Amino acid sequence: MKATIITIGDEILIGQIIDTNSTHIAKTLDKIGIQTHEIISISDDKQHILDTLQKLQNKVDIVIITGGLGPTKDDVTKKTFCEYFNDTLVQNDEVLENVTYLINKVLKRSLNQTNKDQALVPSRALVLHNAVGTAPGMWMEHEKTIFVSLPGVPYEMKYLMEKRVIPNLISKFERPFIIHKTILTYGEGESVIADRIESFENNLPSFIKLAYLPSPGRVRLRLTARGTNEQVLKDEMDRQVEKLEKIISDIIVGYEDDEPIEAIVGKLLTEKKYTLSTAESFTGGKIASVITSVSGASNYFKGSIVSYATEVKENILQIEKQLIEQKSVVSAEVAIQMAEQVKKILKTDFSIATTGVAGPNKGETEAEIGTVFIAIATPTETLCEEHYFGQPREKVVNRAVNKGLEMVFKYLRNQ
Amino acid sequence: MKATIITIGDEILIGQIIDTNSTHIAKTLDKIGIQTHEIISISDDKQHILDTLQKLQNKVDIVIITGGLGPTKDDVTKKTFCEYFNDTLVQNDEVLENVTYLINKVLKRSLNQTNKDQALVPSRALVLHNAVGTAPGMWMEHEKTIFVSLPGVPYEMKYLMEKRVIPNLISKFERPFIIHKTILTYGEGESVIADRIESFENNLPSFIKLAYLPSPGRVRLRLTARGTNEQVLKDEMDRQVEKLEKIISDIIVGYEDDEPIEAIVGKLLTEKKYTLSTAESFTGGKIASVITSVSGASNYFKGSIVSYATEVKENILQIEKQLIEQKSVVSAEVAIQMAEQVKKILKTDFSIATTGVAGPNKGETEAEIGTVFIAIATPTETLCEEHYFGQPREKVVNRAVNKGLEMVFKYLRNQ
Repeated sequence: MKATIITIGDEILIGQIIDTNSTHIAKTLDKIGIQTHEIISISDDKQHILDTLQKLQNKVDIVIITGGLGPTKDDVTKKTFCEYFNDTLVQNDEVLENVTYLINKVLKRSLNQTNKDQALVPSRALVLHNAVGTAPGMWMEHEKTIFVSLPGVPYEMKYLMEKRVIPNLISKFERPFIIHKTILTYGEGESVIADRIESFENNLPSFIKLAYLPSPGRVRLRLTARGTNEQVLKDEMDRQVEKLEKIISDIIVGYEDDEPIEAIVGKLLTEKKYTLSTAESFTGGKIASVITSVSGASNYFKGSIVSYATEVKENILQIEKQLIEQKSVVSAEVAIQMAEQVKKILKTDFSIATTGVAGPNKGETEAEIGTVFIAIATPTETLCEEHYFGQPREKVVNRAVNKGLEMVFKYLRNQ
Repeated sequence: MKATIITIGDEILIGQIIDTNSTHIAKTLDKIGIQTHEIISISDDKQHILDTLQKLQNKVDIVIITGGLGPTKDDVTKKTFCEYFNDTLVQNDEVLENVTYLINKVLKRSLNQTNKDQALVPSRALVLHNAVGTAPGMWMEHEKTIFVSLPGVPYEMKYLMEKRVIPNLISKFERPFIIHKTILTYGEGESVIADRIESFENNLPSFIKLAYLPSPGRVRLRLTARGTNEQVLKDEMDRQVEKLEKIISDIIVGYEDDEPIEAIVGKLLTEKKYTLSTAESFTGGKIASVITSVSGASNYFKGSIVSYATEVKENILQIEKQLIEQKSVVSAEVAIQMAEQVKKILKTDFSIATTGVAGPNKGETEAEIGTVFIAIATPTETLCEEHYFGQPREKVVNRAVNKGLEMVFKYLRNQ
């Protein structure tokens, strides 16, 4: 089964908003074995929508459309749907009841004509009732393709996918199995990894595909298996992952779908009942922010002292002024003292500290832009690494965030 | 001029990553008057890419492709480009020099064959040199369409758009002007607004388009004008905005700028020579991290005390234990004290403080998940707002980050 996802709205085409709806729909379809062939964003223009539906007719099994279902003049999806299927709009009493309830009870207003019009649906459409908003979804089967129209408001779209679209698809179609396994590696670039696993990659069975997903400081390797026999897929996937583990065990830091290193470190800290703090200069609180993006972080994370200005390093972290003058604020010695001081001040078992030059300007130091020192203090010792992360600013910060977490991860794993 | 943006990569089609590259490219093109006709995400499959290029040939003026330029086997864009244009790969010495520099100097490794292959480019392509990564961009003119291929790593794509693609497009083509004005409204739903401005909307000139962008609690109204005479567009836009302001002045809260709020706040602080600090609980350092993402932040930002654990609020921020016990850690009183204390401790003119429940678990408090208190301390007074941001965690944090910055912005603007 192949799907195409369409998002309708000029706001995406002018770059005003990021299309997160398609990502959610694609992920949800993937989980039940439906492959997304393409994702297309088009304008809220009637002819553009008609042309796009026509092009997809009988080319894919299902087309899921979001957006353009609101009550205002720029919302043209419903009328266009009617025109494409040569259908007419009729009032749906159940939808009208829901709209009336939401407007009267939740918004505490009386209904206007625009609200009432939301209860109009194409006469042949299966109505997908929307309990969390006023615009219903619509399901139309036409020749060999199913067309589904959903509202663009993310939580309404998610509700209708979960409660209406996915159950319908599961009951209607036999689907193949799709299994993904994502392996997280830290510390090597993708070209080095590709060299190391060349023979493994060449010998993969045809139904398993390997993808490299690089980001600053880390590479995710994703294996995807597709087929009709779930057990065969699972067994072969396990066998291949085991083979891969043997080749690059030194750089693998974890698995599971999408689990980021901050979650892995969080689990290890929780398990071992350790606590963590950070002292951040050029990373400006990003390490703390990434750590606390994991729910349950309060079990191990106590806090951070973001010492962006040198005076905060001196006054709050109590780094010796003399040390900063002698060694410069961007130095291993200062990073080490920052880590040790924040660990002591916030009373934690571990700490991560950063000092460096993120650019584009050098600031007060002599160090080259992109030069960073990252230190971790542990219950037994303090470790420091110097790195050169180049440019731009965003990359320098992100690589340092990952590197700091990686240093803690490696220490905990080897314990 | 019309453009289509293509992103290549199975990770988008299985919903593993959100496509932010297209948003950036669309926004960048829009600024120079180039309209994005469609955004398409396709798989990293040679035939799929070839079919897509063929379909777009001579249908749009420019096709910008991101992704699939890495050094590994799943990166097929370059070979596919060659096949589509019936061209061959040749070594580009300048690219090889750059790759050698990045691998030797930055990564401190020697070159392998995979690295060397990155210097191969189609013989007829204009090479778009990439100073921040190993994969060069490529610019190919074929019949009536320009095809541009860029790497998928966001900062490399951004670098090449800014330094190579946009300057090339500006020097090559006369473009129409596109002006947007986005008006922020709070407090009314889109159907009510549509009723109130119906006559305004019906009387808009044909070259100005109105769009409604609703999200929980607010509606953005976007006016878009397109034409060849910039002054005519600007004058007419001003006239229409003035008309609109008169009709719905009670719900307009501001206008949206292209610049993110952290940059606007940064400019105002720099101008007025003020300094800023933050004390963050559930936002975990994200406000500090967002503030320091702006280059030049060291001119006004001194640092943050991320007091995730209650003991850090007591020991470092010196919030009275009694106050926390009486009012609860998630309260206006604690937020206000946090703001005042961090302002005093880090010796700044302004501060932002947050305390709340981001979820999914309640933690130590009675407060409902999604309840947050945001306080700002200014040279003359301390202000606090209570908000209910619902779920999930990520949304609660992001809305609080924006709200805190918005509070400082409003204070500075009204000064």
